[in-house]
Amino acid sequence: MPDFFRSIDSAAVFDGSKPTKADLFLGRFLFVGLNCFEPGQSQKVHVHGGSDKFYLVVSGKASMIVGDQTREVGAGTLVWAPADVPHGVETALERTIMLVGMGPPPTLNRQPPR
Amino acid sequence: MPDFFRSIDSAAVFDGSKPTKADLFLGRFLFVGLNCFEPGQSQKVHVHGGSDKFYLVVSGKASMIVGDQTREVGAGTLVWAPADVPHGVETALERTIMLVGMGPPPTLNRQPPR
Repeated sequence: MPDFFRSIDSAAVFDGSKPTKADLFLGRFLFVGLNCFEPGQSQKVHVHGGSDKFYLVVSGKASMIVGDQTREVGAGTLVWAPADVPHGVETALERTIMLVGMGPPPTLNRQPPR
Repeated sequence: MPDFFRSIDSAAVFDGSKPTKADLFLGRFLFVGLNCFEPGQSQKVHVHGGSDKFYLVVSGKASMIVGDQTREVGAGTLVWAPADVPHGVETALERTIMLVGMGPPPTLNRQPPR
């Protein structure tokens, strides 16, 4: 029986050498996971063609870029990166957990959620 | 110029007579919004055919149903409702804010985000 309930705190992992990703749920139409950053870590600006994406800052603080906008964001801020709009994390200003969702799911070669 | 950044706290609204919904972002492939509940309010079990959905409990506490599972959930719990799996909120146990995402977006007759 699949488990439909997961704790963000239990899934978050950090690595001092690079940002980490943790898959939470992967469906046919939607993917949800975590991006975790130590202070100073970043995610270079990139684009998803044909997928809309959001980040929710769960905890911490970061400088984020979407299109031509750069904003310092903290817990409770939702960041919207529509298909074909460049986006990334300029730098994490604190240890930061972001919930990330993408529809349709990324075609990266990821493992299905445990 | 569209604004890619929104605050959950600023968007949350409550109504003592019924749960409320607030759209945050609506794209071609993904929708993100809020469901807000006062204690005792509920969302009846329902199904989305052809869309995966998640809820993130941002604050508060509720009893939620997905498939044959019922769970008491609090802040930081992610709830996954894949396409065609019945889901709902049995009851909110506290004033509760949930972030909700769905891909593809619901075909409800909603206004685009401001």
